[in-house]
Amino acid sequence: MKQFWSERIKDLVPYTPGEQPKDRVFIKLNTNENPYPPSPKVLKAIEDAAGEGLRLYPDPEATALRQAIAEYHGLKPEQVFCGNGSDEVLGLCFYAFFTPGKKVVFPDITYSFYPVYTQLFGLDYEEIPLNEDFTLPVEKFLGSNGGAVICNPNAPTGRTLPLTDIRRILDANPDVVVLVDEAYADFGAQSAVELISEYPNLVVVCTMSKSRSLAGMRIGYALGNADLIAGVNCVKNSFNSYPLDRLALAAGEAAIRDVEYFECTRNSIMQTRERTTVHLRELGFRVHDSNANFIFIAHPAKSGKELQQGLRDRGVLVRWFNKPRIDQYLRVSIGTDADMERMCAACEEILKG
Amino acid sequence: MKQFWSERIKDLVPYTPGEQPKDRVFIKLNTNENPYPPSPKVLKAIEDAAGEGLRLYPDPEATALRQAIAEYHGLKPEQVFCGNGSDEVLGLCFYAFFTPGKKVVFPDITYSFYPVYTQLFGLDYEEIPLNEDFTLPVEKFLGSNGGAVICNPNAPTGRTLPLTDIRRILDANPDVVVLVDEAYADFGAQSAVELISEYPNLVVVCTMSKSRSLAGMRIGYALGNADLIAGVNCVKNSFNSYPLDRLALAAGEAAIRDVEYFECTRNSIMQTRERTTVHLRELGFRVHDSNANFIFIAHPAKSGKELQQGLRDRGVLVRWFNKPRIDQYLRVSIGTDADMERMCAACEEILKG
Repeated sequence: MKQFWSERIKDLVPYTPGEQPKDRVFIKLNTNENPYPPSPKVLKAIEDAAGEGLRLYPDPEATALRQAIAEYHGLKPEQVFCGNGSDEVLGLCFYAFFTPGKKVVFPDITYSFYPVYTQLFGLDYEEIPLNEDFTLPVEKFLGSNGGAVICNPNAPTGRTLPLTDIRRILDANPDVVVLVDEAYADFGAQSAVELISEYPNLVVVCTMSKSRSLAGMRIGYALGNADLIAGVNCVKNSFNSYPLDRLALAAGEAAIRDVEYFECTRNSIMQTRERTTVHLRELGFRVHDSNANFIFIAHPAKSGKELQQGLRDRGVLVRWFNKPRIDQYLRVSIGTDADMERMCAACEEILKG
Repeated sequence: MKQFWSERIKDLVPYTPGEQPKDRVFIKLNTNENPYPPSPKVLKAIEDAAGEGLRLYPDPEATALRQAIAEYHGLKPEQVFCGNGSDEVLGLCFYAFFTPGKKVVFPDITYSFYPVYTQLFGLDYEEIPLNEDFTLPVEKFLGSNGGAVICNPNAPTGRTLPLTDIRRILDANPDVVVLVDEAYADFGAQSAVELISEYPNLVVVCTMSKSRSLAGMRIGYALGNADLIAGVNCVKNSFNSYPLDRLALAAGEAAIRDVEYFECTRNSIMQTRERTTVHLRELGFRVHDSNANFIFIAHPAKSGKELQQGLRDRGVLVRWFNKPRIDQYLRVSIGTDADMERMCAACEEILKG
């Protein structure tokens, strides 16, 4: 029954997020959350902000948060846009920069929200097949197009594109926006933020959901030339003046300023990732090198679906995508050492069974 | 410099929210915030939720919050959609229900975000002039159109349309959606929610920013037939899976469940509104009867602009719209009794000057 739906949404196929079990009995390695709690300074900042002031609207320009993010990245506040999670930021960027009739390009295997935005906003797009080993065929992104979107490190493969290749893509697309989604870059990839001063067509999108342990607070941001950021603001201000509530603004600012906690937790995750990679390879898994807070794994003896179900039966949630080319793989978020040991033990059990 | 902006946003004129002074030295009567703090139970719920769990994504379906809202309104959870403030909810509804090429109708004097959404989403619209006394010419909403949007009580006039007229509009538009924006209905208007069971084409949009003292938390919701709500969900899930963070979910649930606090604070505001109305009329103001948490006022001896500036000089912020037909008026939010006495005293001073 879609009697009252607008014509243009009747065929929309929305994005499906990973499962959020209501009672946490699982080891939850299915949505790339951080296993460590947010910084104590973040919790303190929320506590301080959670009072009478909540009756007032938040700062629609997120001034203090943008200032803190700008300082962290060595940019100016007018080069920073803040939104309700990087999903909203990405959506607003797609609307701000891409024009119907001009094909936006992105890989066939990448964050599956990209084609959803293009459908929602009536944009044309082309999915460029990744190489067999899931590396990006850079030359296919050099042609003329209406914009390019690159998740780096890529999800769900974890593969990273070096900055030299990002540069080639930016150079070859001087008249359109190249959007680099760095949701996972804090876990070991080289960021493209340093190229912003050189390229007026570069937008980098970041999130506090992963490396800042704040998935529950919905804080994302875009970085780029001030003219590009003004474009995202124009769309945001035509849709929702205040996408970040007062507690999210306070939490985000405290998180970005607590560099020490950030370094400590992301290093732990990277170390656990390396240990887990070694362990799983010993069990016969194919594990791609990853610069993200997840690994992409497959095993010759068991299908992706069987592995996912076996892990679920043993109390471990991981993500399996029922899609061509990757349906033998699992995307496994990096938890604590203890989480990953239990996950590896469960894999061992499944492989013996 | 809009070199990289999408063609379709180059002429967008975004909504301008009321001023949010960074240091609060003003009596702030310009953005219809509630003068009373949120319920203590809301602050407790936030405190309880502000812990380790923030590392995890929120419930994308806002299950507990929707359940609480459904119970409060006597509906089912599938008749409730929750979003990031009623602005986002309205935006998603415009996209979900209105089709380009089919004119959406709303008054010429109403919430000025409506024409912004239509421009953003490439919708056609017609502004129906209100009568001289700012009442709604109901018969002009009975013709064939692509949907109708009615803010009730209307902003910024405070005028209320009786349910019998809402019924007439719903009856005359059986094939399109009639959206009733009830941002201010808790302050004395009759809600159209009771008509939802009869009209599959009715959507009612509500906010916790005004009557629940939670402007800072960004919680809005839509109520309607389950098929309509599924349509808004389809758009939301194609744009941002998690528009409400964990603290907003907790705050909203506690707010809707604390009926006693809600009744107490909204009654205070209604009483203060009546006292202020009497006082201002004594000062020679024209004051429209209002069922909102603001009043719409004009004075024969001073222009709207002069009054606004005079009040600002005396530490009182009110909203003045530089628009035809209403540029002699001020929209004044209802604060505490003390706030309103200071506001009235400032008016007296200005009128003597």
